[in-house]
Amino acid sequence: MDDIDRPDPVKAPIGVFDSGVGGLTVAAALRRHLPSEQIFYIGDTARVPYGGKSRRTIERYGVEIGGLLLAENAKMIVVACNTASALAVPRMQQVFNVPVEGVIAPGARAAANRTSNGRIGVIATRATASSGAYERAIHSIAPEAKVFTAPCPLLVPLIEEGMFVDPVTDLMINRYLAPLLAEGIDTLVLGCTHYPLATAAIARAAGPDIALVDSADNCARAVKELLSEKSLLASDTTIGGLGVALTDATESFLRTAERSLGLDIGDVRLLSVQS
Amino acid sequence: MDDIDRPDPVKAPIGVFDSGVGGLTVAAALRRHLPSEQIFYIGDTARVPYGGKSRRTIERYGVEIGGLLLAENAKMIVVACNTASALAVPRMQQVFNVPVEGVIAPGARAAANRTSNGRIGVIATRATASSGAYERAIHSIAPEAKVFTAPCPLLVPLIEEGMFVDPVTDLMINRYLAPLLAEGIDTLVLGCTHYPLATAAIARAAGPDIALVDSADNCARAVKELLSEKSLLASDTTIGGLGVALTDATESFLRTAERSLGLDIGDVRLLSVQS
Repeated sequence: MDDIDRPDPVKAPIGVFDSGVGGLTVAAALRRHLPSEQIFYIGDTARVPYGGKSRRTIERYGVEIGGLLLAENAKMIVVACNTASALAVPRMQQVFNVPVEGVIAPGARAAANRTSNGRIGVIATRATASSGAYERAIHSIAPEAKVFTAPCPLLVPLIEEGMFVDPVTDLMINRYLAPLLAEGIDTLVLGCTHYPLATAAIARAAGPDIALVDSADNCARAVKELLSEKSLLASDTTIGGLGVALTDATESFLRTAERSLGLDIGDVRLLSVQS
Repeated sequence: MDDIDRPDPVKAPIGVFDSGVGGLTVAAALRRHLPSEQIFYIGDTARVPYGGKSRRTIERYGVEIGGLLLAENAKMIVVACNTASALAVPRMQQVFNVPVEGVIAPGARAAANRTSNGRIGVIATRATASSGAYERAIHSIAPEAKVFTAPCPLLVPLIEEGMFVDPVTDLMINRYLAPLLAEGIDTLVLGCTHYPLATAAIARAAGPDIALVDSADNCARAVKELLSEKSLLASDTTIGGLGVALTDATESFLRTAERSLGLDIGDVRLLSVQS
């Protein structure tokens, strides 16, 4: 009786939650790996960036946006934001009955599998870096690994300006990577959902001997596995798509990301949150 | 009868409202020009930055924070944020009975008085630049002036990183100023409350022939005039001070600004807003 009128979970969308539009790199990876899935993305642009906010505040945002995704009938929630993954996922897993996957655990797993010399670098925003979330996640899999984290506070603003190919961006990336390269890392985690947009510049600075781990791509693989395990994958005869809603109107970087990622985003809905 | 129990308006604090802590440059200018005044500063760090938000949202924030300042018995409200000055001041002047002064009108006035050749440059955030607020304010005083505005989206992040003396900062400022210098400006408005912290770098890039107009300093002068006109100046035997409240905990740039500006900020209160 309970199931009457419940929509088919297999056909339900994957809910994606980001503080802004940087998580569109995750949405793009999900589209690549899971072309039959419908994706519903909420960017909390009214309250972006989360980086400087307290854990309690970010937990509250996570639960609030998670609720909006469930109201869209999401079969699972992907937290496509490193800060929210570091701070809000545990609480969201506590309060929601659908699976909640962040970007940190999949990236950490991929890095631990990838490294040969056990020396892993992580670049991230200041908030993610100081949370220590990647270190903890990597050490839970590879306790003996050495993890070196560099906060790169200017990289998001540079990327949001579309300065993917620019001497200023190269200069800053070189500066941020120098201490990691000096530690002899062989693997570098791009620990922020914006960074895949600057992969070429980061690869140039890192050199050919360092493997880059893209947390967006690894997150999409983890989501695919998880849906498969739970028999929640959409039928491959279905044609998936991407719907986007934002909590405040913002267009400029959204369109930059759309172009760079080859995403097809139509009309953007506006959702209301308490701010 | 109405006046019974009303606190003495002359002894009341000047309320300062900013989206974050950049407006501390205005607080510092107020301390210099009005050492006898008590200043109560609220930085809306829970919802910073305002730059990408809609007018309606920023109006609501302005009225909300204005109410918190009035609850502190503010005798006037200074909006120490260019975006909020451009978008929220008209609404705040409508709903509040105390004077509300922004940073744009005083900066525009000073620039119009300063220029000899009638060619004025403005550097600002993208939101302030695209609001056209400086152009309108300058043209209302000097209709024949030519105003050239350059959005400098990376300047705030560079300043928040404390990169006041850095080749990357110089490179970006040179790039931002180039089109303004090509227009033959003789006056340059620092149209963002963060920018006075980088005055030395901006002056280097602008060269010795361009007058810099610091909107923080000109705002403080305008506040002094306004209080004097309304007989609301604190007695000069009083020793003023600065109280700071934030809407979410954030310390790093607050302490950078405190050091750079020679401000004395003690304990910081936490105020609650709806976000």
